[in-house]
Amino acid sequence: MNIVVDAMGSDTAPGPDVEGAVLAAQETHHTIILVGDKQQINNELAKFSTQHLSIDVVHAEQRITMHDQPSQVIRNKNKSSMHIGMALVHDGHADAFVTAGNTGATLAIAMLSTLHLIPHIKRPALTAIFPNLTGHTIAADIGANTDCHPEYLLQFAQMANIYATSVMQIQTPRIALLSNGEEESKGNNLIKETTKLLNNHPNLHFIGNAEPKATIEGHTDIIIHDGFTGNIFIKSIEATADMLLQLLKEKTTSSPLTSLGGLLIKPALRQILKQIDPFEIGGAPLLGVNGVVIIGHGRSNAKAIKNAIHQAEHAVNANIIATITESI
Amino acid sequence: MNIVVDAMGSDTAPGPDVEGAVLAAQETHHTIILVGDKQQINNELAKFSTQHLSIDVVHAEQRITMHDQPSQVIRNKNKSSMHIGMALVHDGHADAFVTAGNTGATLAIAMLSTLHLIPHIKRPALTAIFPNLTGHTIAADIGANTDCHPEYLLQFAQMANIYATSVMQIQTPRIALLSNGEEESKGNNLIKETTKLLNNHPNLHFIGNAEPKATIEGHTDIIIHDGFTGNIFIKSIEATADMLLQLLKEKTTSSPLTSLGGLLIKPALRQILKQIDPFEIGGAPLLGVNGVVIIGHGRSNAKAIKNAIHQAEHAVNANIIATITESI
Repeated sequence: MNIVVDAMGSDTAPGPDVEGAVLAAQETHHTIILVGDKQQINNELAKFSTQHLSIDVVHAEQRITMHDQPSQVIRNKNKSSMHIGMALVHDGHADAFVTAGNTGATLAIAMLSTLHLIPHIKRPALTAIFPNLTGHTIAADIGANTDCHPEYLLQFAQMANIYATSVMQIQTPRIALLSNGEEESKGNNLIKETTKLLNNHPNLHFIGNAEPKATIEGHTDIIIHDGFTGNIFIKSIEATADMLLQLLKEKTTSSPLTSLGGLLIKPALRQILKQIDPFEIGGAPLLGVNGVVIIGHGRSNAKAIKNAIHQAEHAVNANIIATITESI
Repeated sequence: MNIVVDAMGSDTAPGPDVEGAVLAAQETHHTIILVGDKQQINNELAKFSTQHLSIDVVHAEQRITMHDQPSQVIRNKNKSSMHIGMALVHDGHADAFVTAGNTGATLAIAMLSTLHLIPHIKRPALTAIFPNLTGHTIAADIGANTDCHPEYLLQFAQMANIYATSVMQIQTPRIALLSNGEEESKGNNLIKETTKLLNNHPNLHFIGNAEPKATIEGHTDIIIHDGFTGNIFIKSIEATADMLLQLLKEKTTSSPLTSLGGLLIKPALRQILKQIDPFEIGGAPLLGVNGVVIIGHGRSNAKAIKNAIHQAEHAVNANIIATITESI
């Protein structure tokens, strides 16, 4: 198996991206192909002992930044690490693509210039796999489609169900629609129409509507929403957690006694941070495109990149693309 | 001024509701009218020295619970404390109504049986006034309208602007639309269409799209969304904060050393809880109905009820209903 890693993806690339690839290569017998500026990649690789590792480097002269617009990337950056990396998957030279780069650009290049959609898939779904109180929830869509039809949401549920079953090893994933109340009378028109489709579907374990609280507490394995609502949902959780942890840091250093207290609770805080750490999973799949693509957070560190590479490995082993193609 | 308080509103009513009314009556020269089960209210009142306070009691034989459906409340509960309380405002016997009860029922009774909408207002807006890192943000709509047209959102912005200016004393409130990105290219169709209306409006200080993070950090005074998205937004913040504080409690009591640490950081934690405490404001207005209605959280304690009553007082003093009627 060959897994392509976008060496120019993360906010501080290529440092974490290359180190993550090295860490992954130490743990797997598969080949990691780093795509990006060859000189910069080799400089980073030189920091590690890599002679026994199966790591290849493919040069890409262009780099996509977080500020690049998806439309312009399609026209002007077809020599970027993203484009070349996904083309390697499309052409059969590699099995999966991992990036911590610009999500909109990844989506555009995957859909329009390289991998394209799986037949019969109406829209791709960006996903997040986030920690809840008892495990992990896969959320789809978190931003690819701001305006959705019920049929899109049904397909997001089907694809997430396949991913949760075959890659995340959840036997019968509980699927819910994110809504403003649990009752079937709640929800906007999109939710109400999608409920009918999911209720009538024989192969999905649809448990109804879920509010944010139930989702965060882990009462559902899959949470489905349009990309606009899902984006607000995920970003609200992230922003609230960031704010609280920042306040806790500030306030506990405001006096010698609270500082001591802050020191003493550090192990507890570390446990909490580990429990809610998105980097433990590292990345989440872009579902619906015709090739395995795992997208990590721009803030990814080496551990996150490593774990994202392992996600890709599991997805390839689970034959996720073929399964989606056959099932939908 | 007479302010009606729904004595049967909060989850543990009438205890906090009556105590909150007593606390408010101690701080104001206005009359508080408690509506609900007379016997129960008098039992609660007997716990305080109220002989010099201006508190009236009006009996209501029915009580609305959190499980009552809005449609059934209209048909079957017109002798409830909510119905009688809002009818007192509608008939001119009182100036404002405060409740910590069932939000859907409050909305239905206000709109359909008692106060009705202000002329030219298309839809009412449920609001929340929540703490951000530097002050407070007023959010509208948080649940009255799951499917919205751009014209509704424009009116929500206009009404929230009047409330923020005249009641919250914010000179030129910054208004933003909650979206999945700051750029004007982001947002769903509703947000993009509403942006055009707000951009062209001469009297509103529209600052564009805001993500959850910017809102929580206090970069906007007013955040506008449809009731579905707004509900998810507010509940995501609440659920995340609850989860983190619960985890912190659990983990800091897991060993003697972290327990000591937990004890030492208590003053810091108290500061944080005070900073993010929704009860400091106590309640938020139901905008668009033809009378001042302030809705508090079901979990309200006496302090929250007291502060909600003061909110009502400020709203009446600011002549909020007349201002909205004249401006829209």
